[in-house]
Amino acid sequence: MNPAEIIKKKRNGGILSRNEIKFFIESYLKGEISDYQMSAFLMSVYFRGMNDDETFYLTEVQLNSGLIVDLSDIKGVKVDKHSTGGVGDKTSIILAPQVASCGVIIPMISGRGLGHTGGTLDKLESIPGFRVDIDISGFKDLLGKEGVALIGQTSELAPADKRIYAIRDVTATVDNISLITASILSKKIAEGADAIVFDVKIGNGANLPDRDESRKLAENLISVSRKFGKKAVAILTDMEEPLGYKIGNWLEIEECLEVMNGKYVNDLIKVNNILAGTMFFLAGVSNSIAQGEILAYQSLNGSKVYEKFLKIVKAQGGDVDYVKDYKNLKRPALSKKIIASSSGYISEMNAQMFGMAAIDLGCGRKKADDKIDYLAGIELKKKCGQKVETGETLAVLWASSDEKLNSASERINNAINITDNKPEEKQLIIDILGA
Amino acid sequence: MNPAEIIKKKRNGGILSRNEIKFFIESYLKGEISDYQMSAFLMSVYFRGMNDDETFYLTEVQLNSGLIVDLSDIKGVKVDKHSTGGVGDKTSIILAPQVASCGVIIPMISGRGLGHTGGTLDKLESIPGFRVDIDISGFKDLLGKEGVALIGQTSELAPADKRIYAIRDVTATVDNISLITASILSKKIAEGADAIVFDVKIGNGANLPDRDESRKLAENLISVSRKFGKKAVAILTDMEEPLGYKIGNWLEIEECLEVMNGKYVNDLIKVNNILAGTMFFLAGVSNSIAQGEILAYQSLNGSKVYEKFLKIVKAQGGDVDYVKDYKNLKRPALSKKIIASSSGYISEMNAQMFGMAAIDLGCGRKKADDKIDYLAGIELKKKCGQKVETGETLAVLWASSDEKLNSASERINNAINITDNKPEEKQLIIDILGA
Repeated sequence: MNPAEIIKKKRNGGILSRNEIKFFIESYLKGEISDYQMSAFLMSVYFRGMNDDETFYLTEVQLNSGLIVDLSDIKGVKVDKHSTGGVGDKTSIILAPQVASCGVIIPMISGRGLGHTGGTLDKLESIPGFRVDIDISGFKDLLGKEGVALIGQTSELAPADKRIYAIRDVTATVDNISLITASILSKKIAEGADAIVFDVKIGNGANLPDRDESRKLAENLISVSRKFGKKAVAILTDMEEPLGYKIGNWLEIEECLEVMNGKYVNDLIKVNNILAGTMFFLAGVSNSIAQGEILAYQSLNGSKVYEKFLKIVKAQGGDVDYVKDYKNLKRPALSKKIIASSSGYISEMNAQMFGMAAIDLGCGRKKADDKIDYLAGIELKKKCGQKVETGETLAVLWASSDEKLNSASERINNAINITDNKPEEKQLIIDILGA
Repeated sequence: MNPAEIIKKKRNGGILSRNEIKFFIESYLKGEISDYQMSAFLMSVYFRGMNDDETFYLTEVQLNSGLIVDLSDIKGVKVDKHSTGGVGDKTSIILAPQVASCGVIIPMISGRGLGHTGGTLDKLESIPGFRVDIDISGFKDLLGKEGVALIGQTSELAPADKRIYAIRDVTATVDNISLITASILSKKIAEGADAIVFDVKIGNGANLPDRDESRKLAENLISVSRKFGKKAVAILTDMEEPLGYKIGNWLEIEECLEVMNGKYVNDLIKVNNILAGTMFFLAGVSNSIAQGEILAYQSLNGSKVYEKFLKIVKAQGGDVDYVKDYKNLKRPALSKKIIASSSGYISEMNAQMFGMAAIDLGCGRKKADDKIDYLAGIELKKKCGQKVETGETLAVLWASSDEKLNSASERINNAINITDNKPEEKQLIIDILGA
């Protein structure tokens, strides 16, 4: 087979065979196909797409480039959740202990912040001592002991994806559904889950803002997961405004701890509980997603989710006392208030711009070697649809320098819109696919 | 500027500015943009195209990557001809001495065989001693002395094109009009011509077989040439069957020598003379292309074109006696006849398949380091539209081994079609653009 002919076939809209995809990716990994042929291939896929079979083959060869975790010696159904990424999206922190506390095994491998979106690993690392760089043997130990593990991507799983992603990142070939699907699933299938719930974000704060594209991605994730014999459901959720009231690494852990201890945060709990409910359903703990959702609400009453989370923190080396002390608000030295300049109803809190403001404050990296300020972040005092008066505080920003506060506050002033009329309520749970 | 953002802009169908194109190509040449970003960029251009301005900027930056020849100290109008490549297409060999013999300066930099098409340099090198690897100073000396030079691409001119072409060749990004235009013109503009005639081949034997695409290429070549202040005309010519009766390196030189000495080869002379006529017109030697064509026919009567060619051969180190001895047919040891298996009219002599057969015989390279058999080739005994009887010879193949003859004859048997009814005569000169 000739690499240029395979690129040309895809470029011309052809359907690649399993052998052609396997040959192309494996030859690339062996160094027999160059980076520039890979990037031409990726750009052809960007324009021509891949059908479900091709996406499956691509996922398969990326998956087989590394270890596939065998969790068969751990009893129970293994269920994971994957979010396509949003702003203030902290559900993993809640639903992992929540679903695990009901006996479901949660083998969760998460990512770091990407673009304007936050990452579960960065949030967990805001807990002093919390380790996410755990190898597969340690991962299995945690699952055996606690029934849940929250770790980072290891080089043992789907190394092909890491190499291909490094190229996609700098060649404008990230935002393609087939490539996103293969990237997500090659890692997810490798971690050994039996079932996966996908939280596909839709809206300006999502990594893939287009609604139709997001829906296609959801369908693609489900159909390719099923080709691997995995159960899969996708929940399409709104990401037009940040989820919950807190954005930032420790701030988001803090909000999760508040929720685990009885605080009612409407949108966050709604999204969290439909995801948790779907996990219960796929694990066979409930007979439907609706029943699973009820179980999710019940499980948040009482202390067992919080206690499970403390156990995770302890098992992964985190400082349990630091976590328990969450009511003693930990903040950077400086803060700045965002004040309403007019009265009315909040019609927009642009999630993407809030995400970028959080990066300005130090919550994320602009360059790969930037250091994160774990305490920095944003506290919303109001959310979309709420009434405000001129002079009221809309949000508080926290950072270690005035410079950071100023650039973030400029963004946030542009991110918030106040109108005279009460805006229509947004649909938070947009759709459920594959149930 | 961010390379990935420029790729993304083009990928999304945006129009790139002069600065963006300059930055991208110059950074690439400096090693600050990687090969894989270049190939992603090229594939985006493949899908989205470039408008005339963008193509001009790309040509300009490739042109400025090397030397631009200044021919202002050589008196006279400088005119060149460029063919997009065909099979049996040997007009450069005739029209260069022909037009130069009438006082027009011909600064011609040609290429080697590419794919199934032949190359002027390979043909010239079938003359023992003929040198085409002449630097720019030698090129100018030849132009000063003989008014004509037939040399190969030097690394001094448009080196960016060479680097980019090496990537296009293996990433399925060759066949794009903007990239072809920039590649051709960055070299053509560099050689210092005032006017260029483009012979854009159309048909199965052309490098760009699609009719509409070929027409667009012709229009693109004209409009971008004019942005550089050059006069330009494009002649669209048929390349469904080989041009003339002989294919192969020395065989083509031989046919040209025959034409220079009074032999009438209908299609070859028609195409040659409209190109030569257009060169006369652009040089101001004639008032119209039609008048130029008449001058071209006149100039082939008599011996001055042949004498001019002998002077070129001598000036470029070639063996003049070898050339003069052209009537003493020089052939490889072995030959094979292609025989008509039925009676009727020849309706097809597929140019592309003849070109591939010529490569089989040793006229071209399958790998970069293959040695060329300069005497190998094909002599047609019949052409499309002619009547044949079963058992008549249609063509004779010449090569150094039976293996080569067998594989070529198999192709040629498939390349020729005989029908009961006389086919419609094809239009050889399809169109003239830009006149």
